Amino acid sequence: MKDKPDDLLAALEGRRWQSGAEVARRLGVSRAAVWKRIERLRSQGYGIEAVAGRGYRLVRDSDLLLPDAIRKHLRAKLLRGEIVHRTTIDSTNRLAAEQARGGAVEGTIVVAEQQTAGRGRLGRTWVSPASVNLYMSVVLRPRIPPLEVPRLTLVAGLAVAEAIRDSGTFQPRIKWPNDVLLDGRKVAGILTELEAEADRVRFVIVGIGVNLNATRTDFPPDLKTKATSLLLAGGAPVDRAAFTGRLLTRLDAAYAAFLSGGFAALRHRYEELHGLVGLAVTIDGTPPLAGTVRGVDDGGALLVESGGALQRVVSGEVTLRQAYRKLRRGPV
Amino acid sequence: MKDKPDDLLAALEGRRWQSGAEVARRLGVSRAAVWKRIERLRSQGYGIEAVAGRGYRLVRDSDLLLPDAIRKHLRAKLLRGEIVHRTTIDSTNRLAAEQARGGAVEGTIVVAEQQTAGRGRLGRTWVSPASVNLYMSVVLRPRIPPLEVPRLTLVAGLAVAEAIRDSGTFQPRIKWPNDVLLDGRKVAGILTELEAEADRVRFVIVGIGVNLNATRTDFPPDLKTKATSLLLAGGAPVDRAAFTGRLLTRLDAAYAAFLSGGFAALRHRYEELHGLVGLAVTIDGTPPLAGTVRGVDDGGALLVESGGALQRVVSGEVTLRQAYRKLRRGPV
Repeated sequence: MKDKPDDLLAALEGRRWQSGAEVARRLGVSRAAVWKRIERLRSQGYGIEAVAGRGYRLVRDSDLLLPDAIRKHLRAKLLRGEIVHRTTIDSTNRLAAEQARGGAVEGTIVVAEQQTAGRGRLGRTWVSPASVNLYMSVVLRPRIPPLEVPRLTLVAGLAVAEAIRDSGTFQPRIKWPNDVLLDGRKVAGILTELEAEADRVRFVIVGIGVNLNATRTDFPPDLKTKATSLLLAGGAPVDRAAFTGRLLTRLDAAYAAFLSGGFAALRHRYEELHGLVGLAVTIDGTPPLAGTVRGVDDGGALLVESGGALQRVVSGEVTLRQAYRKLRRGPV
Repeated sequence: MKDKPDDLLAALEGRRWQSGAEVARRLGVSRAAVWKRIERLRSQGYGIEAVAGRGYRLVRDSDLLLPDAIRKHLRAKLLRGEIVHRTTIDSTNRLAAEQARGGAVEGTIVVAEQQTAGRGRLGRTWVSPASVNLYMSVVLRPRIPPLEVPRLTLVAGLAVAEAIRDSGTFQPRIKWPNDVLLDGRKVAGILTELEAEADRVRFVIVGIGVNLNATRTDFPPDLKTKATSLLLAGGAPVDRAAFTGRLLTRLDAAYAAFLSGGFAALRHRYEELHGLVGLAVTIDGTPPLAGTVRGVDDGGALLVESGGALQRVVSGEVTLRQAYRKLRRGPV
């Protein structure tokens, strides 16, 4: 079978819904072959919706996360390493760590169109459909002890929230420590990993996943009500490479501020975007801690008021004790 | 050229010094060929001294660190993973980390006869001549945050010092955090490395190097006065596999105590073998800290009295402010 993606693109050009049977007939190939070509176009960055009963619809031309396209929007002092682009990869964090072990400099960046084994925190997976979102990992080599590394998750979360805010009329909210929400739904996550001697960091990998142009059909059923994307929340597709450049510019500035002034230098900006303040939460642990979030301290710990006392939480899973709706409607 | 190591062994059997020329003549090969075969025998565990002007001398039969030989001396509850043996490897820590990334269970052990790129703390090298010492790395998967990982260096140092004390009339001394000394000279070192999410350890590699049967000629010139071995300090060669089994038995017990009671459960045993107590030291840093060591606390921090106040030191390089002689002659 010859590969003629251009025929297929031409067939979809009207950007209307077209049934798979109709497209197959026009191209003279099977419906399975159409599906295979749709998948290939998606892997090349084309945004194509597929809905049972309606067919296919082209919603966006290709916007691969190519290094040159990213650099056009990137102003950085520290994050000036190579940008490594992969069409598909098991995990950008895994490849970035491999590169760092091989000597990759601080600021080396790995981006991928798709992850086949995208990782989330605590061993969870990160749903990573092709060519609609951002999957990126950044190699950092800060001279800090391992115990300060969790603060880099907050630094990255701040940069992501700021980049989203820069992208339109969004009101992103950070859910300490590592998620960014839009309308109470997860739009981005951070996975920070490190390799270290016992008391000296060798390198840190900050992995960032942002749902940009994902549609409802890109999420598995159990995430449909919990996840969102900039497209879903804002109604318009985002230029992924431009967003990536802006995000890296924000991350570069936040990281530089952290290196010179610690998290304290960023705390005020973080609090502006922090979504948990004033909410009733439970932190897992033995025993679990229930209380009301009052903010974060200069070390990045979550401050939880419980039984009249203020507790510092340095790590843990936060569960909201009311519906996400409250978070969604919280004050800006 | 046929490989006849047995001929060479037979030639060395009297265990007297024999010149390279004489051995070459008896075997009917070149002196270079004799040297090559000597190297091969050493790689198989034979202890052969080589001194310019005197020639070669067999000092010890082969005692490779073979898994079965180690297991004969190993009583463990936790460290019961596979024992991986390599004749030569770049770094046992490197291989152990690779195995851990691939899913190796807690207690997986890598031992090698020789390291070609043995690593020490702070990016230094660890001199690793073939088949005379112990180079070992243990995969651990403790459920602790990264900030507690430095304590595992102390746990391992304690186990090493205890295993050395068990091996004869030695009086080993721990130099916080990661060295073990005999007669004021370094006999063992620990390199603890970790891979982690920001606030959750994925695995820890505890690398342990112990100079067992190394002779003066095995050390490079700059280490001759700073390093020693059990052979040099005790006058008799050590059964390396038996030592390894005993060391792992000690490590297993100390690690179990740490997991259930924290470093506090081991502090008293550590203090018994700690060599720095009462000594004047300088700790690197900005500014450096000068004072007198008073011990370690329940978290494994070094307690340094300076200007009338007690400082907790959680990491850093300790420099003694007097000759090692004092440490060597310190009270038991």
